[in-house]
Amino acid sequence: MYELGVVYRNIHRAERAAVDRLARFGVATVHEAQGRVGLMKPYMRPVYPGARIAGTAVTVLLHPGDNWMLHVVAEQILPGDIVVAGVTADCSDGYFGDLLATSFRARGALGLVIDGGCRDVRDLTEMGFPVWSRAISSKGTIKATLGSVNIPVVCAGMSVKPGDAIVADDDGVVVVPAARAREVADAAAAREASEGEKRAKLAAGVLGLDMYKMREPLAQAGLRYVD
Amino acid sequence: MYELGVVYRNIHRAERAAVDRLARFGVATVHEAQGRVGLMKPYMRPVYPGARIAGTAVTVLLHPGDNWMLHVVAEQILPGDIVVAGVTADCSDGYFGDLLATSFRARGALGLVIDGGCRDVRDLTEMGFPVWSRAISSKGTIKATLGSVNIPVVCAGMSVKPGDAIVADDDGVVVVPAARAREVADAAAAREASEGEKRAKLAAGVLGLDMYKMREPLAQAGLRYVD
Amino acid sequence: MYELGVVYRNIHRAERAAVDRLARFGVATVHEAQGRVGLMKPYMRPVYPGARIAGTAVTVLLHPGDNWMLHVVAEQILPGDIVVAGVTADCSDGYFGDLLATSFRARGALGLVIDGGCRDVRDLTEMGFPVWSRAISSKGTIKATLGSVNIPVVCAGMSVKPGDAIVADDDGVVVVPAARAREVADAAAAREASEGEKRAKLAAGVLGLDMYKMREPLAQAGLRYVD
Amino acid sequence: MYELGVVYRNIHRAERAAVDRLARFGVATVHEAQGRVGLMKPYMRPVYPGARIAGTAVTVLLHPGDNWMLHVVAEQILPGDIVVAGVTADCSDGYFGDLLATSFRARGALGLVIDGGCRDVRDLTEMGFPVWSRAISSKGTIKATLGSVNIPVVCAGMSVKPGDAIVADDDGVVVVPAARAREVADAAAAREASEGEKRAKLAAGVLGLDMYKMREPLAQAGLRYVD
Amino acid sequence: MYELGVVYRNIHRAERAAVDRLARFGVATVHEAQGRVGLMKPYMRPVYPGARIAGTAVTVLLHPGDNWMLHVVAEQILPGDIVVAGVTADCSDGYFGDLLATSFRARGALGLVIDGGCRDVRDLTEMGFPVWSRAISSKGTIKATLGSVNIPVVCAGMSVKPGDAIVADDDGVVVVPAARAREVADAAAAREASEGEKRAKLAAGVLGLDMYKMREPLAQAGLRYVD
Amino acid sequence: MYELGVVYRNIHRAERAAVDRLARFGVATVHEAQGRVGLMKPYMRPVYPGARIAGTAVTVLLHPGDNWMLHVVAEQILPGDIVVAGVTADCSDGYFGDLLATSFRARGALGLVIDGGCRDVRDLTEMGFPVWSRAISSKGTIKATLGSVNIPVVCAGMSVKPGDAIVADDDGVVVVPAARAREVADAAAAREASEGEKRAKLAAGVLGLDMYKMREPLAQAGLRYVD
Repeated sequence: MYELGVVYRNIHRAERAAVDRLARFGVATVHEAQGRVGLMKPYMRPVYPGARIAGTAVTVLLHPGDNWMLHVVAEQILPGDIVVAGVTADCSDGYFGDLLATSFRARGALGLVIDGGCRDVRDLTEMGFPVWSRAISSKGTIKATLGSVNIPVVCAGMSVKPGDAIVADDDGVVVVPAARAREVADAAAAREASEGEKRAKLAAGVLGLDMYKMREPLAQAGLRYVD
Repeated sequence: MYELGVVYRNIHRAERAAVDRLARFGVATVHEAQGRVGLMKPYMRPVYPGARIAGTAVTVLLHPGDNWMLHVVAEQILPGDIVVAGVTADCSDGYFGDLLATSFRARGALGLVIDGGCRDVRDLTEMGFPVWSRAISSKGTIKATLGSVNIPVVCAGMSVKPGDAIVADDDGVVVVPAARAREVADAAAAREASEGEKRAKLAAGVLGLDMYKMREPLAQAGLRYVD
Repeated sequence: MYELGVVYRNIHRAERAAVDRLARFGVATVHEAQGRVGLMKPYMRPVYPGARIAGTAVTVLLHPGDNWMLHVVAEQILPGDIVVAGVTADCSDGYFGDLLATSFRARGALGLVIDGGCRDVRDLTEMGFPVWSRAISSKGTIKATLGSVNIPVVCAGMSVKPGDAIVADDDGVVVVPAARAREVADAAAAREASEGEKRAKLAAGVLGLDMYKMREPLAQAGLRYVD
Repeated sequence: MYELGVVYRNIHRAERAAVDRLARFGVATVHEAQGRVGLMKPYMRPVYPGARIAGTAVTVLLHPGDNWMLHVVAEQILPGDIVVAGVTADCSDGYFGDLLATSFRARGALGLVIDGGCRDVRDLTEMGFPVWSRAISSKGTIKATLGSVNIPVVCAGMSVKPGDAIVADDDGVVVVPAARAREVADAAAAREASEGEKRAKLAAGVLGLDMYKMREPLAQAGLRYVD
Repeated sequence: MYELGVVYRNIHRAERAAVDRLARFGVATVHEAQGRVGLMKPYMRPVYPGARIAGTAVTVLLHPGDNWMLHVVAEQILPGDIVVAGVTADCSDGYFGDLLATSFRARGALGLVIDGGCRDVRDLTEMGFPVWSRAISSKGTIKATLGSVNIPVVCAGMSVKPGDAIVADDDGVVVVPAARAREVADAAAAREASEGEKRAKLAAGVLGLDMYKMREPLAQAGLRYVD
Repeated sequence: MYELGVVYRNIHRAERAAVDRLARFGVATVHEAQGRVGLMKPYMRPVYPGARIAGTAVTVLLHPGDNWMLHVVAEQILPGDIVVAGVTADCSDGYFGDLLATSFRARGALGLVIDGGCRDVRDLTEMGFPVWSRAISSKGTIKATLGSVNIPVVCAGMSVKPGDAIVADDDGVVVVPAARAREVADAAAAREASEGEKRAKLAAGVLGLDMYKMREPLAQAGLRYVD
């Protein structure tokens, strides 16, 4: 967030196989599997429902109302990447629309996560190019100021390094540091496996109170029942 | 909102027949029928569109970022209930997801109204288990602090007593005190009946100005027309 | 925004042919074609997705929590109009629902843009009567205070004069002064034409950096690449 | 929150002596002493800094943009009361100014807590009549709709019954049910006493880690130190 | 709000004598005297308490994050003016600080009203140059895009024409159209006069219920008292 | 933001002399001197006006509603430090009050910057211990979950590393990476020097248009004057 006017071309991306495995789980599961860290703020919403993607971050730092660097970042996209855009101050203008989406897709991007606004929602929905943004806005932006590409950025309250794994779905966006992608994917798989069994029990009417053995700690904490 | 660590097991629920009748009307109609009181704040939104439910409230008071009591309340659910969760301070974390939804459904709950966040939106949509919440968030919660079950709570600005009737749809959530459920259902039915006739007139081009005889009071208030 | 208790019956509407042409373009395109002015704030959202309309504004000024003047404005609607409602202070109450929608449609209105709340979302969706609003709320309003009809109003941060062209879609709402409708439609058409060619190039993998000849100005601004 | 058009003249006020004792402690202390319940939302701010009051609630339910009932509640004020005003829907209009403050003071009110807007800040500051509100707004209100006086209301997310003890200072507003006022005052006094000793230790450089014996539970929770 | 790149040098300012008289009244009084129109949104707050000014508007339209036009508007300031700045999209960056304040003051400006952010609060306080803004932010802005000077703008939800009278104090900001300044000053004076008498009665314990003769209309509306 | 349950005891603090020099400039100047990066979001406000501090960051990561780690971080404070607290999800509860302030001060802390709530405002003001926070709230917090101390955190949208220089005043909070503290202090000094000269010219009536030689670029951009 502190370096302006530079584009890092070589970044270390999270291992593809691990990222692909993360793609099978939802954001909530990955977030839990990582120990409840890495979640972007819940104001980040998908512009259309139903998308779920996992990829590697190429990052870009923008200035408010200026999308010049989105053209710069396009060149650094490799297939399987997700562009993650931070902004130096809050601004909900529409930095991104269908033309940039066409370009990003041609480079192999899976989607965009932007701490700003987005437009051309109808086109993006038809293209199936998912965007998570803080706002939908037609407000056009200018091309006047240098930010940076592939530096560490903050997006929606979370720090993102280039190459980190990103998972996004209807529940929001979670960041997994590149070095932890495999470990988190393992933990998510284990969690998912155990959840299947739990779900079956709960569906059969077993209470979480019993399944998680909560009655004793609740009583110790002082919970009392009144008829 | 003032009593912690207690679960009331016996509550007086609104009469089933009246609640079932309320289910036929929308939230806007019920709210008007009740005299324009009882509406939760409009930040409460359904996690997917199209659901409409009416049921009896089992209430739960949570602390910010702590969903322990959601397991406690599960045991108190009877078929036809809607869980209504208040929180002692604003916090949009994801207190509720598909596992708890599975458990609540197994107990007969029709849905959840929570003045906090919710996750697993995709699963909830597939299950058809409707939730009205102030946010969608994957942020996990802890199980450390006692709240209460079936005490009066405030949820989204409205006081709710256990057993009150709750109606929720795409327009929001309205609360009807248990003792007034029948009377409000009657008033809603009357309102709905009269609205059909009005709708037909308006569709035929009759103006509300004439149908509601507003021209005279408007003129008396001083309204003037300029050509 | 300063005159109360008056209804102007004769307004000069933007030329129909120009408005019809504007209807072919999205809000983002029209906003750009007009020079990036005229956009309402992005908190204005459609109550259901997918609608796109263009029409001429009949304006109404409301007081908070009072929808009396919506009945007055109904009489001034001509086919092809869009009602634009400003409010003298922020209030998200539900000023508008299916009965008024039925009346507005019978008069030929294409939709409503209201800097307040709206209800009966399910009915509006079924009717296909689009509304852009700042909130969805069932809160009923009263009929006690005079506003005005067809005076200049501010709606969601933008000034609107009666007769102005309004374009609204999933990206928001843009206002085009009546006198500029033809010129903006021309500019939008030119922009749309040029965008088709650009889209094809970008889809083929050409970078915006090259297509827009940005590399030199970026270098002059000091952008540097690090391997 | 559900009964309109009624004024309850006889209410049971919290014991004066207990309320007077509560006045010696700050809101934070009283809130903790009560078990961390009863706090209004933090958007409630004093219109000028430095005031601290404790009194008994006379409650009033208003409609958005309508302050008629503030004149009705004035008559029900007894010396030592604090008026607590809830509104049936969010609206930041200026319901209260120096004239009403003059009237309330003449009746013996200590201040006002209102889940809406307030005006005449300069006059209120000069008078020394404290108000906690969600906004400062000059927007005038009307007198058209009946609310109620001395029914249970929700104000800033907290339920308040007529007669409850209210404590308000720069930290916010807390509600103490009338029946618990003495017990909470006792607990607050005990807490305050113990805090003096703690403060002295901390000022002398003793760490909370040691004073509260946290090192062992932290280690058990897994905290590790890295040099 | 629709014309870019133009500076109008000759504007018709509200009559000085009327503006000077408006300066004697608070914003709340002027707003009421004008019929409850003209008030900017309550998010506009003074950067320090206690200022009260009245002057004539010179207007400027800015783009988000760009303060170039504040230098252009400086040249158009005459003694007694207040600069009113609208922005084409919400952006809380710090457009204005002590250097511009020094320049504006040298030209005779009484203050600034800006629908954006402001910085150098300490210096502005020491200078006694009052600013009403939506935020305090140190975020620097650029000088890249043309707005306009002395066109009609929207500022904080209210339309302002160059030359309009502006009154601002701790209660907010109100706009009085130039042509109405004298009439509104008269009405404000009348209101102020009558308020003095009312204040004395209320201070003596007379109730608004009696002074305004509200008991009968309240009873007719159905208000009932319960002992 | 990704590592839980660890306390780093040895951190590299920004050079004291450079930090002391930064203390002489305001946040706005330092932010500009650094190239317009490093600013926290403007919702961060001081709990009382007039404080200005510069120090070195000791960082702490908290969970929503849990202040346990504030006791852990206290031990890591050295004289001249400022504690910077990030939270894993938005929560405005009151994590910090006069007891912790007493402890922090005893350790030599200059102040606290917390992306959460703060209480005991009156005591903090009397002590002169400055806090920048997102809210003032009496809501008590628990001590149940491990965060970390002296890891990189995000606070109010900005990434902060342990040892970074922090400058805070009435305009907000800016972060200067430790390695850049001297360079930024130099740039701030140069900027401040040049501003003195500019201020004098502007005060004498010279326009920014002339002083900054803006007339030509404005004309080239197309600005036109109309009489």
